[in-house]
Amino acid sequence: MPDTPSSAAGTGVLADLNALRAIGAYRSGVHKPTFSAPHLESLQWLLAKLPEAGLTGAIDGIGNVLTTSTKTGPKLLAGSHLESQNYAGWLDGPLGVIYALEAARVLNNDPDVTGAVEVAAWCDEEGHFGHFLGSRSYVGGVTEADIDAASDRSSGRAMREALSAAGLAGIPRQAAERGRHVGYLEAHIEQGRTLESEGLKIGIVTSIVGIFQYRITFTGEQNHAGTTRMTDRRDAGLALAKFCVAIDERFPHICGPRTVWTTGRITLDPGAPSIIPGTADMLFQVRDADVAVVARLEAELQTMAEEVNAQARCRVTVECIRRGTPAMMESKFQQAIEAASSNFAGGKSLRMPSGAGHDAQVLATIMPAGMLFVPSIGGISHHWTENTADEDIVTGAQVFVDACRRLLTQ
Amino acid sequence: MPDTPSSAAGTGVLADLNALRAIGAYRSGVHKPTFSAPHLESLQWLLAKLPEAGLTGAIDGIGNVLTTSTKTGPKLLAGSHLESQNYAGWLDGPLGVIYALEAARVLNNDPDVTGAVEVAAWCDEEGHFGHFLGSRSYVGGVTEADIDAASDRSSGRAMREALSAAGLAGIPRQAAERGRHVGYLEAHIEQGRTLESEGLKIGIVTSIVGIFQYRITFTGEQNHAGTTRMTDRRDAGLALAKFCVAIDERFPHICGPRTVWTTGRITLDPGAPSIIPGTADMLFQVRDADVAVVARLEAELQTMAEEVNAQARCRVTVECIRRGTPAMMESKFQQAIEAASSNFAGGKSLRMPSGAGHDAQVLATIMPAGMLFVPSIGGISHHWTENTADEDIVTGAQVFVDACRRLLTQ
Repeated sequence: MPDTPSSAAGTGVLADLNALRAIGAYRSGVHKPTFSAPHLESLQWLLAKLPEAGLTGAIDGIGNVLTTSTKTGPKLLAGSHLESQNYAGWLDGPLGVIYALEAARVLNNDPDVTGAVEVAAWCDEEGHFGHFLGSRSYVGGVTEADIDAASDRSSGRAMREALSAAGLAGIPRQAAERGRHVGYLEAHIEQGRTLESEGLKIGIVTSIVGIFQYRITFTGEQNHAGTTRMTDRRDAGLALAKFCVAIDERFPHICGPRTVWTTGRITLDPGAPSIIPGTADMLFQVRDADVAVVARLEAELQTMAEEVNAQARCRVTVECIRRGTPAMMESKFQQAIEAASSNFAGGKSLRMPSGAGHDAQVLATIMPAGMLFVPSIGGISHHWTENTADEDIVTGAQVFVDACRRLLTQ
Repeated sequence: MPDTPSSAAGTGVLADLNALRAIGAYRSGVHKPTFSAPHLESLQWLLAKLPEAGLTGAIDGIGNVLTTSTKTGPKLLAGSHLESQNYAGWLDGPLGVIYALEAARVLNNDPDVTGAVEVAAWCDEEGHFGHFLGSRSYVGGVTEADIDAASDRSSGRAMREALSAAGLAGIPRQAAERGRHVGYLEAHIEQGRTLESEGLKIGIVTSIVGIFQYRITFTGEQNHAGTTRMTDRRDAGLALAKFCVAIDERFPHICGPRTVWTTGRITLDPGAPSIIPGTADMLFQVRDADVAVVARLEAELQTMAEEVNAQARCRVTVECIRRGTPAMMESKFQQAIEAASSNFAGGKSLRMPSGAGHDAQVLATIMPAGMLFVPSIGGISHHWTENTADEDIVTGAQVFVDACRRLLTQ
């Protein structure tokens, strides 16, 4: 039984993260798609680590590792995920799981702490088969029909087939036991440059943005690029380009301080060099933690569409295809992280929204939740060069363990 | 031996065009890709028609039907093509071949006419395997290596394999006999709305535009669409949209009266909704009959690229990937068509450039050339609904035959 004080927390974290990096290694990162052999091996590695943290656990029917402590007192749920994006970084996911494991090792074995940390590794946060399938299953948001319909976005393999090959067919999915946990805490790399550029060590997440996605479709008239005079054209591609530029001009005047928006894909049809595009569409995404801001921007998109339609050259429709409600992080969790940062990170912390989605936003629908960020070198993520300085990883672990202690003893 | 006067020309044309439409019919149009069974059957149909026009001929090693008359006196080359775009119209190509056949039937059998019309059907004008491979082979512009490298843009089938399956492997390609022909005359549907909208019957082509094609590539920085703040972004897709809009604003001030330009394809990389595009490229095409105009527009593209690069957010390169020299139509040919239009189309003719490419631009590199257009209903082409009124088809044939007579007797 280790009797590590909080101040020594973090010593085992680097070794554990490197052990997980060795499973499915790709250059300096990893390639561990959901239900791949290295992903499943990582889950088994975690199960083997549970006894030293005073936990028992198993993989449930959707691939979540869920654990329980028999210690009396309040229970705090903590974790993240172990699968990766394709050919991506070693910390996106494992950092939060290992911080949670470290907190459990330290606190569950400390007789002075009443209560325990229970570790979770949520399956498929990276969305190979869907959106947050593991954590959504835990909160009751995934039906059997959803699983029947899910398939791997890279290989096309059916989720049922992947579950069966992983030995998980027929195993029940575990649902949250309401009231068991005082809340959920998750650590993650920032995946942006804010902490690094300001010389800070800890991001205290105030909210996780909602992701709103739109398909904006322009309909003009397909025609011959040689014989159709400029004045006769109804070019759907040009209408789309003008719309993108108009967004760039108008959104900054009405957005929130941290709103971001992105046109990630453009398709002109038929897409041939000698044919004026008859239709064009763009995938457009808006992220903000404030639904009122998103509503204002969405209304502006509709106004812009009406302006285009009034000109009667091309028609445009704006269709919302994804509404991701923003999640607020519990203020008590933010306070606990801030106090822990004062102790272990010299107070070099910043309250900030998360621009990326995380399992914490799903858990926040059924219990209080909080998140902590550590700096990302160069802001890089979803790439095998993703990294965080060793000392920042250790500092983050110390803050995380201390924050868990505060949340259990409050 | 028919002794049809010019005024009765055109009577056989509709029957011939409908016979060709029945080979490879698709709805009211045809589907006759180069070297498909219906294309090859159409070539055989034409060979069978040659004797009634006083011609002998064969299919050469690249799929051209070339014919000769033994009549003394000047020879005029006339024709077009028999393959079609995929699932396209019945007149794009066959109209010009059948007009040429009709002219040969009428004039080659007329003892009062010294000289003869020699009919050609150029292979692959529609570019299934390349650009004008048949006519370019005839003028000496295609090497054996070009054929080795060519493949069907739809199926990927190698041209060598297609030639072999068509029984054309090992058959020599026929080159132009310099000095044999007084020139080349081709008829075609307009593929635009100019004649129809002005109530005219005959377009007298003054020039065939050059087609200049550019790949314009934008390089920014690929990043996370949630965690990268708007001010930190180097969005290649947005830079592309701004460039398209800038072209639309600046080109009208410096273009020629009939210049056209088209962005036919846009690709954002990686093209995912949650990733800021790191690179973006567009296929951009300019058409004009005046190379000086194109040079001015190309210089403007480079200036615009320098302006973008000076801002240092994204880099842009403009690469010319196709330079198609414009072709001027011979004034004597234009005069012959105009005089024939006065006789047979009530003078309802218009001198106009061709915005589309045609085999005549290739033939114009080695002999005087001319082109005649008939109206397209609704300006539609490269679609199975493409059509021309029967009476306009007959009028066009009468004008064509009379223009050929004038060119032979001048």
